[in-house]
Amino acid sequence: MKTILVIGIGAGNPEHITVQAIKALNRAKVLFILDKGYASDDLVRLRRDLCEQHIQGDDYRLVQVRDPEREDDPQSYRNGIEQWHEQRAALFEQLIADEVGEEGIGGFLVWGDPALYDSTLRILERVLARGRQAFDYEVIPGITSIQALAARHRVPLNRIGEPIQITTGRRLARQPGAELDNVVVMLDARTTFEEFLDQDLHIYWGAYLGTPDEILIAGPLREVCEQIKRTREAARAEKGWIMDTYLLRRPLD
Amino acid sequence: MKTILVIGIGAGNPEHITVQAIKALNRAKVLFILDKGYASDDLVRLRRDLCEQHIQGDDYRLVQVRDPEREDDPQSYRNGIEQWHEQRAALFEQLIADEVGEEGIGGFLVWGDPALYDSTLRILERVLARGRQAFDYEVIPGITSIQALAARHRVPLNRIGEPIQITTGRRLARQPGAELDNVVVMLDARTTFEEFLDQDLHIYWGAYLGTPDEILIAGPLREVCEQIKRTREAARAEKGWIMDTYLLRRPLD
Ligand SMILES: C[S@@+](CC[C@H](N)C(=O)[O-])C[C@H]1O[C@@H](n2cnc3c(N)ncnc32)[C@H](O)[C@@H]1O
Ligand SMILES: C[S@@+](CC[C@H](N)C(=O)[O-])C[C@H]1O[C@@H](n2cnc3c(N)ncnc32)[C@H](O)[C@@H]1O
Repeated sequence: MKTILVIGIGAGNPEHITVQAIKALNRAKVLFILDKGYASDDLVRLRRDLCEQHIQGDDYRLVQVRDPEREDDPQSYRNGIEQWHEQRAALFEQLIADEVGEEGIGGFLVWGDPALYDSTLRILERVLARGRQAFDYEVIPGITSIQALAARHRVPLNRIGEPIQITTGRRLARQPGAELDNVVVMLDARTTFEEFLDQDLHIYWGAYLGTPDEILIAGPLREVCEQIKRTREAARAEKGWIMDTYLLRRPLD
Repeated sequence: MKTILVIGIGAGNPEHITVQAIKALNRAKVLFILDKGYASDDLVRLRRDLCEQHIQGDDYRLVQVRDPEREDDPQSYRNGIEQWHEQRAALFEQLIADEVGEEGIGGFLVWGDPALYDSTLRILERVLARGRQAFDYEVIPGITSIQALAARHRVPLNRIGEPIQITTGRRLARQPGAELDNVVVMLDARTTFEEFLDQDLHIYWGAYLGTPDEILIAGPLREVCEQIKRTREAARAEKGWIMDTYLLRRPLD
C-alpha cells in the first residue's frame, strides 16, 4: 500500500515547523510542492529551503507542479470550485500513480495547517473515490497564519470565555451589520474591514507573516484603517501579491 | 531587561513541538511549569519530558508551581475569573522577581497555543500593569488541541468557504436552537452536544489527544452520541480527569 503524508509546514516562518513534520519530510521519498503561479517564487523557495534544511541525506525527490488555476465563475462560486477540484483530483491521482512506488511514501507540503481553508484532504478523498489509486494517508498539523498573527501581536484570539469566529473576506462582506466579537478573517481579496468602521472595533492585521517581509499593524480600526489600506496597496504593488490576515474585535475591557 | 518567553508546546503529542519552541526552551535559563492539580501527574510529566528531551546541557532549572485554583463563583463567572487572575498575577510577578535574573530569560510552558483559551498573556500584561516588574515578552505559537483533533480525524475544520466557530461548552449550552455550521467545542465540562440531537449533525470527538490514552470517535451525532457519553464517563472515572474537544457540523455534501 502507498502512503501519502499531508504535511503542514507553517505559514511562512520556517521555525514554525514541528518535529512531527520534520520526521514526515524524512519519511517521504518524494515531496510534492504545488505552485500556485501568483506568489510563486518566494513561497516555493521557502518550501524548498525547508526540505533542504531538514531532510537528512539526498535520497528524495522534490516534484514541483503547477496547480490548476481556479477559473472564477461569477455565476457560481461553488461550481467554479467543483470543476477546479476535479482537475486537481486528476492531477493528484497522476502524481501518486507516477511518482510514488508500490510500497512508497509521498508527501504533500501544505501551507499552514491542512485543516484550515485548504483542499488537499478533500482532493485526496476524491482521488480515493475515483478508485484508480489506493493509498493510506496521514495528516500532520502545522502552525496556521492565524497563530502566527496572534503570536506576533502577542494577543489572545479570545477574551475570557468568548467564542472565536474564523471566516473569509467574502463571507464577512455579506454580514455588514453583524456584531463582531472575535473574528479572524482570511482570504480577503479586498479590505472588507472598512465596512465595519461604524463599530467600535480593534484590528490586528498582518501580512507576509513569518517571512522577511512581514508587516504588522494594530490599533483601533477607525484610527489605523487608512494606514492598513495604504500599506497593503503599496506592498501588493511592490511584490505583485499579498497574503494577509486580521483579527477584528471589540476592545478588551 | 528581563525577557519572558511564552512557549506553546502543543496539546499532548510531544512531536507537535516546533523548532521555534525548542530554541526558546534552550534560550530560557528557568522554565515555569504550572500545575493545575487535576490532571496533574501525566501532564506535568509530559512537560518535564519535553524539556529533558529538547534542552541541550543541564544549565537550566525547572520550577513547578501550583497554579491557584479558580473558585467557581456561581453568582458571577466573570468575578470568579477576575479574582483568580489577580492571584495568578501576584504569583507570576513573584516568580519573575525571584527566579529570573536582571538580564535573564525565563519561559512559561503553555499547553497548546497561548492565543487559545489560555490566560498567560493576559496575566503577564497584568503583571506589567502592576508596575513592580519590568520585562519584555515574546510569544511562541504551538499546535492546538483543535489541530490535533482535525489531524487525527483527517478532517478539514471547514467546508469550502464556510466559517468556523470555536466556542466553549458553557456558551454552546446557551444557544440550544442555533444552527451549527462548523463548531469546535472546548472546555466542555459536560456533554453539551447532546442538546443538538434534533439537528442532522456529524461529530468528531477526541479525548487525551496526542497522548498514549488518546480516544477518537466520529460519526453521525445521533448514532455515536451514547457511545461517546459512555466512553467519556468510563475514561474519566478511570483516570480521574478528562480533556476532550469536538467538532460538530452538518454532514459534508
Ligand atoms: C488558502 S488559505 C490557507 C490557510 C493555511 N492553511 C493556514 O493554515 O494558514 C490562504 C490565506 O491564509 C492567510 N495566510 C496564509 N499565510 C499567511 C501569511 N504568511 N501571512 C498572512 N496571511 C497568511 C491569508 O489570509 C490567505 O488568504
Ligand atoms: C484551557 S483550554 C486550553 C487550550 C489550549 N491552549 C490549546 O491550544 O489547545 C483546555 C481545553 O482544551 C482542550 N484540550 C486541550 N488539550 C487537549 C487534548 N490533548 N485532548 C483533547 N482536548 C484537549 C479541552 O477542550 C480542554 O478543556
